Amino acid sequence: MQQQEQKNPPVRPKPVKKYMQGAPLSPWRESLHEIIFEAETPAGKWFDILLIVAIAASILVVMLDSVAAINLNYRTLLFMAEWFFTILFSIEYLLRLLCVRKPIRYATSFFGVVDLISILPSFLALFFTGAQTLLVVRGLRVLRIFRIFKLGEYLGEAHALIRAMRNSRAKIAVFLYTVCVFVVIFGAAMYLIEGPEHGFSSIPQSMYWAVVTLTTVGYGDISPQTPLGQMLASMVMILGYAIIAVPTGIYSAELAREYRRDVTNFACRHCGEEEHDQDARFCKYCGGVVP
Amino acid sequence: MQQQEQKNPPVRPKPVKKYMQGAPLSPWRESLHEIIFEAETPAGKWFDILLIVAIAASILVVMLDSVAAINLNYRTLLFMAEWFFTILFSIEYLLRLLCVRKPIRYATSFFGVVDLISILPSFLALFFTGAQTLLVVRGLRVLRIFRIFKLGEYLGEAHALIRAMRNSRAKIAVFLYTVCVFVVIFGAAMYLIEGPEHGFSSIPQSMYWAVVTLTTVGYGDISPQTPLGQMLASMVMILGYAIIAVPTGIYSAELAREYRRDVTNFACRHCGEEEHDQDARFCKYCGGVVP
Amino acid sequence: MQQQEQKNPPVRPKPVKKYMQGAPLSPWRESLHEIIFEAETPAGKWFDILLIVAIAASILVVMLDSVAAINLNYRTLLFMAEWFFTILFSIEYLLRLLCVRKPIRYATSFFGVVDLISILPSFLALFFTGAQTLLVVRGLRVLRIFRIFKLGEYLGEAHALIRAMRNSRAKIAVFLYTVCVFVVIFGAAMYLIEGPEHGFSSIPQSMYWAVVTLTTVGYGDISPQTPLGQMLASMVMILGYAIIAVPTGIYSAELAREYRRDVTNFACRHCGEEEHDQDARFCKYCGGVVP
Amino acid sequence: MQQQEQKNPPVRPKPVKKYMQGAPLSPWRESLHEIIFEAETPAGKWFDILLIVAIAASILVVMLDSVAAINLNYRTLLFMAEWFFTILFSIEYLLRLLCVRKPIRYATSFFGVVDLISILPSFLALFFTGAQTLLVVRGLRVLRIFRIFKLGEYLGEAHALIRAMRNSRAKIAVFLYTVCVFVVIFGAAMYLIEGPEHGFSSIPQSMYWAVVTLTTVGYGDISPQTPLGQMLASMVMILGYAIIAVPTGIYSAELAREYRRDVTNFACRHCGEEEHDQDARFCKYCGGVVP
Repeated sequence: MQQQEQKNPPVRPKPVKKYMQGAPLSPWRESLHEIIFEAETPAGKWFDILLIVAIAASILVVMLDSVAAINLNYRTLLFMAEWFFTILFSIEYLLRLLCVRKPIRYATSFFGVVDLISILPSFLALFFTGAQTLLVVRGLRVLRIFRIFKLGEYLGEAHALIRAMRNSRAKIAVFLYTVCVFVVIFGAAMYLIEGPEHGFSSIPQSMYWAVVTLTTVGYGDISPQTPLGQMLASMVMILGYAIIAVPTGIYSAELAREYRRDVTNFACRHCGEEEHDQDARFCKYCGGVVP
Repeated sequence: MQQQEQKNPPVRPKPVKKYMQGAPLSPWRESLHEIIFEAETPAGKWFDILLIVAIAASILVVMLDSVAAINLNYRTLLFMAEWFFTILFSIEYLLRLLCVRKPIRYATSFFGVVDLISILPSFLALFFTGAQTLLVVRGLRVLRIFRIFKLGEYLGEAHALIRAMRNSRAKIAVFLYTVCVFVVIFGAAMYLIEGPEHGFSSIPQSMYWAVVTLTTVGYGDISPQTPLGQMLASMVMILGYAIIAVPTGIYSAELAREYRRDVTNFACRHCGEEEHDQDARFCKYCGGVVP
Repeated sequence: MQQQEQKNPPVRPKPVKKYMQGAPLSPWRESLHEIIFEAETPAGKWFDILLIVAIAASILVVMLDSVAAINLNYRTLLFMAEWFFTILFSIEYLLRLLCVRKPIRYATSFFGVVDLISILPSFLALFFTGAQTLLVVRGLRVLRIFRIFKLGEYLGEAHALIRAMRNSRAKIAVFLYTVCVFVVIFGAAMYLIEGPEHGFSSIPQSMYWAVVTLTTVGYGDISPQTPLGQMLASMVMILGYAIIAVPTGIYSAELAREYRRDVTNFACRHCGEEEHDQDARFCKYCGGVVP
Repeated sequence: MQQQEQKNPPVRPKPVKKYMQGAPLSPWRESLHEIIFEAETPAGKWFDILLIVAIAASILVVMLDSVAAINLNYRTLLFMAEWFFTILFSIEYLLRLLCVRKPIRYATSFFGVVDLISILPSFLALFFTGAQTLLVVRGLRVLRIFRIFKLGEYLGEAHALIRAMRNSRAKIAVFLYTVCVFVVIFGAAMYLIEGPEHGFSSIPQSMYWAVVTLTTVGYGDISPQTPLGQMLASMVMILGYAIIAVPTGIYSAELAREYRRDVTNFACRHCGEEEHDQDARFCKYCGGVVP
């Protein structure tokens, strides 16, 4: 019975969100909350699916709007679609504020802020009219894309990945620090060796080259011309090649450890053998009942 | 000695394909089936080897046909080779239909469709004559290459790889989703920072750049010019560098688990459950003796 | 309770640095040593943090100095900042010499040399005046960046990573040797196939191309033009793709072993051997009781 | 005592090479064999080190010879160095033939052939004089570089790496086959989509592009221009990104398995516990002597 707890991790009660602590709301607002914020009921599920479709469609509109040829021909249509989604998401935002127990808490939570940011740009475009400002506002409008972050809520699969990443956080920090040191040193060295006449016009520019090379991206917009520069660049590449092993190794080992935890480490009461699977109900060695 | 059975997974009876269920055919069609569809008999093996050689040769013909210099000099020869293989594969297709118990089932199965697609383009080229159409048909002709998919049947090694991939399917989906989010956000950000005058002419175009950079391909056809753009690009590259660890880690850990567990794939006689460990003497689900 | 000791590796006494062996200094020099060299006391911690900030700022000055547009406008400010940091680090260097028991030992240690190198270039620029020499001295000045190596002291997380790397040292050497052999052979082959007219102007140049390709960097400044060259290049790429698995595999397996073993790093009281497992109750070398 | 065998793998007797089977030679030829072929005696070690230095120097001469600027100024010196090494290696080759029991066997063995190939080109250059032939012969001369393969004999570390690679041979073959299928299909698709006007001039050329992209090399000499082509290219890149996980995963898991074998799987005679290290002389659980 003590391993019951570790056997069924999904059964543990969901933590109550901060903006839902406090006195209950009127029944219709509570059931609206169920639809908008939860995904357990059929209505809640449909709401979520429709929301995802709407988000994807609104992102598509922003994308198409940036393509010159399409913008020229379908300007009005895109403008209307843009406003359709803005109004839709505004209504959704107001409903969300309406059906939580502490609206301020929700508005200041991560997704509350994201929800607001994803509707603001279109409204801002109304007040700041004028040729040059419009362009800036279009820029803000692009921020709407942050709305897709909300999709993350609907995917419950990412836990093992994120936990392994959090566990190896310190190691990855050390790794990133080492990469930065390499970038600074190799960047400075290449600036000295190649110099501005071969495109390495400043140390920051050379550091950009070092990142491009160390990560094996290799645009080729800046590339060493002198034999000494090419020799050093070769060393950077082989180093980058060898160093790519580090984050992968860290993450692989961490994930493998995650996986190994699946095996319980308690011994069978009957025969004393260990290494039973999480879902075992009988000892696989003696057939005794697993408590 | 009872472990012998579970140690030899290849001994388990092959599942009967859907198109071979039903009443048996006349003897010669059954033995033709043995040759064309199976690879156990010497004749069947030779048929398979010859088929692979023919497929490889026909793909080579399509390839050479696309090279301008070769096309100019050997047009007639390539045309004849093209038709030789088309007729050969047509006969093979008819024979396949002839020697299965349910021809419709075969024709609608994956390899039935692939077989048909790989001979159709050449025939279509006969009816749709004319300069410009021919070019399109040549395009269809290229689809013949799908025939090589059939080679997959002859390689019985891929099981562990595919099982590990199927097990980590959900994790890879989460990973791909994250990559897509990054691509959209970084694409939009670079479109704002660099703009059309540096090659980032639209958000889809910038997203293409983000994919090229995040995957460390780095063509260099579009590359950031402004200091801010280069700084963001450096971040994208280091992120891509760190993120490459994730699918590798997932797959490594999954394969390591495959290796460690060596799960048998036979079902318990008592409860029908599968996935027992190699060293199991009792079913871990019902406690029954494992034979 | 005896396992408590081996569970807390940080408790073992810190080894005394070579330059601190010998007779103790006067009290104020000893407490200065505590502040400058150690980070246990609040004063020592603050000193370290300020030093890191100063190092980062001085590196930023060197970087900005190399950007032509900034150099033009803020030449005097950068010059003054440069000298401010040079004098600051000179005072720090003298204080370090003052508060160690064996100054020569410190001055010849790794960080002693790095400390000196990071202040020398600015002083050298005073004596070697003249247009062209100044440029060389600015080059030396860039060496100041080595100062960031000192940051490494403040990160105590890197141990597991470095130990895994040291353990797989021999394997990585074999791997690098193999890569070098491939680079030489493919470089020579491409020089023969493509020749100087396609950018492969010499074997060293072709070897540079081979490194760029094998490491999947792919600048594109030199790329094969002939069909045979492209075929060989494709082989090199797929080889590089497959070979990237080797360092990652080595490092992953080594790190996984690190994780699994959790070897204690205390020595046996009886025979002095180290590397006992966490669960060891007896020394595996002499059979003595592990405390 | 039965695990003695598995404890000391280096103790097993070295297999007698095929060319040393048969009647023994005269004493001085046997001791010459000891020096040239073996590395156990001091004389043998020195011979090997000198040989490696000579090989490296001769490769350097070939490399420098290919650099136009150096060739122009030091032509005579390089020519003399070339002949010095050729005569040196010729003498070495004759001595090798002289001191083995079956010279034919040696001459037809892998390293016998490599030894011959590495001296032949210089001699061939004597008989086939003339401007254009010389260039071809210089090409053959480059084959001398194969001599470095012999260095492999002196590195005894590569065994675990090679064994893990041999074990995962079948899986890597399946992987490479899959990569080839992708290359053919994507190459053909891009040829249809982009066509000769964007650099995709034939299917083989497009396949070259597919390899460049799938392996994340990304020269940028050929890159998609149309939106559809860029979309497909993005898919290829993400696929390549995900697929890079496969060889790494295979190799990591295989190496991890190699490592795990280091732990013996026999139980202690006294307490029955398992998982002792290879070098354990006493049981770490009960302190009993490991047999």
